[in-house]
Amino acid sequence: MLYIIGLGLCDEKDITVRGLEAVKSSSRVYLEAYTSILLVNKERLESFYGKEVIVADRDMVETQAEEILKGADKQDVSLLVVGDPFGATTHIDIVLRARSSGIPVRVIHNASIMNAVGACGLQLYNFGQAVSLVFFTDTWKPDSFYDRIRENIGLGLHTLVLLDIKVKEQSEENLARGRKIYEPPRYMSIPQAVSQLLEIESLRAENVLSPKTTLAIALSRVGCDDAGPDNTRQRIVCGTLEQLSEQPPESFGEPLHSLVIIGKRLHHLEVVYAEEYAVCRETWRRVAREVYGCVLDYMATPEI
Amino acid sequence: MLYIIGLGLCDEKDITVRGLEAVKSSSRVYLEAYTSILLVNKERLESFYGKEVIVADRDMVETQAEEILKGADKQDVSLLVVGDPFGATTHIDIVLRARSSGIPVRVIHNASIMNAVGACGLQLYNFGQAVSLVFFTDTWKPDSFYDRIRENIGLGLHTLVLLDIKVKEQSEENLARGRKIYEPPRYMSIPQAVSQLLEIESLRAENVLSPKTTLAIALSRVGCDDAGPDNTRQRIVCGTLEQLSEQPPESFGEPLHSLVIIGKRLHHLEVVYAEEYAVCRETWRRVAREVYGCVLDYMATPEI
Repeated sequence: MLYIIGLGLCDEKDITVRGLEAVKSSSRVYLEAYTSILLVNKERLESFYGKEVIVADRDMVETQAEEILKGADKQDVSLLVVGDPFGATTHIDIVLRARSSGIPVRVIHNASIMNAVGACGLQLYNFGQAVSLVFFTDTWKPDSFYDRIRENIGLGLHTLVLLDIKVKEQSEENLARGRKIYEPPRYMSIPQAVSQLLEIESLRAENVLSPKTTLAIALSRVGCDDAGPDNTRQRIVCGTLEQLSEQPPESFGEPLHSLVIIGKRLHHLEVVYAEEYAVCRETWRRVAREVYGCVLDYMATPEI
Repeated sequence: MLYIIGLGLCDEKDITVRGLEAVKSSSRVYLEAYTSILLVNKERLESFYGKEVIVADRDMVETQAEEILKGADKQDVSLLVVGDPFGATTHIDIVLRARSSGIPVRVIHNASIMNAVGACGLQLYNFGQAVSLVFFTDTWKPDSFYDRIRENIGLGLHTLVLLDIKVKEQSEENLARGRKIYEPPRYMSIPQAVSQLLEIESLRAENVLSPKTTLAIALSRVGCDDAGPDNTRQRIVCGTLEQLSEQPPESFGEPLHSLVIIGKRLHHLEVVYAEEYAVCRETWRRVAREVYGCVLDYMATPEI
């Protein structure tokens, strides 16, 4: 059996009991490396599981699937992925390969940012399509996310924006010389994300986003204890795009970060809920009332 | 501390290790009853946790939150909900009440249908807003879902349709006499859901859905072992709306059911992946090719 096991969002204890049982029954356990740098390291997992964990980078999962699948028709093999196995990235290819080799596959689900984003208090029903935002370079500024956000905004829907990370990057020199030396991982910060969004708004000028009247919610380390140690805790910060762009990057906590662009289907209770996280409560309420049309008169006493 | 703990999708072992620790540390454990009828019963949870579980129906969670919160400033109390605490239904109200009483809250996330729907192989990025479909009566056929599906279809996006369940319903007679006797729970089947969708299509006639050319994927018991006992296993069945409406209800497995209406942003690999679940592979491929524009020439050998 090939088990594809979601690890959830924060640390080694976010695996499910079922997932842990599968790991313990497995003769080999792979960890998709793309993820391992982020939240839990290999050693911590090994100590928690009491067995060796083999790091498999994204390339290996995609191109050397045979190695992972070897013998999985006779014994259990686990592939661990952060979040849910069918979260932001699907693992269709390895499942198809397993199928064609007659290897049974069992997926063990877990939370991913695609549903845990609900932690900001916005109804998941009112989210449109999610988008990814990649690091711009001087010559490469892909802006298809702008069309997707415009489509969502046009329907009054919220947009989950997943921010780029760069791992296993090589410098041009190392790449040219074929040296497998990698740069430190980079994570897009909230101010940088907002700056890129507004840069494309200036270029396209279709009035999708506005610094002063578009509300957004920044999330980091969703699912981690929000009263935990400073470098691991969950943080939620909300305000106008301009306000978020003016905060120091560290006020948003440690990566990974996500950003929600709020659409017009904002409910007054959601405004109340997120107010606790506002850069400035007064601005948050004012824009929710004047721009988003929320009726907030009885907001002081949330009688539900 | 109030813990709001997602139980995940299938049975008692889908709780996370962190969630289980919170349950064990709690002096009182509530189970939102709305959910308990579906997948795991109270006794099974009690035996797994080694402690009493108090059933709290949805009314209690919403209107008698004080009872749940009592003492949670000094000791741990857990509220268990199926799926993720911020899945299809948010638990904003009880969090707001806890906050106003100075009770810290910790949410422990888990999989919900909102992300685990990825099990059908469709990229979550290409889903638009999710909709709910309620049981029609002779006089009440709410059709706002049709507008939402039209919006998604217009953008080429998939739609997750959550099917109604009726629990704790009273017959008119029992209601009139004030007798708290409840009817057996009812779950909407896939054929009934498709029939309701097509009924509104006939009435509105906006060419959003078509029996022969709209593809859909039916899912039941997502996250449960798909090789498990017949009454608990996950099933995925796909085809045109007409094909799904013609299958016997039992071919879709046990409730809960969900349905995905497929939009035009269908990728050929997704077609290959889901083909295994097709009512008729030939029709599935033909409609994907002719209506959805998927290039399927090299589908026989999935070289990724």
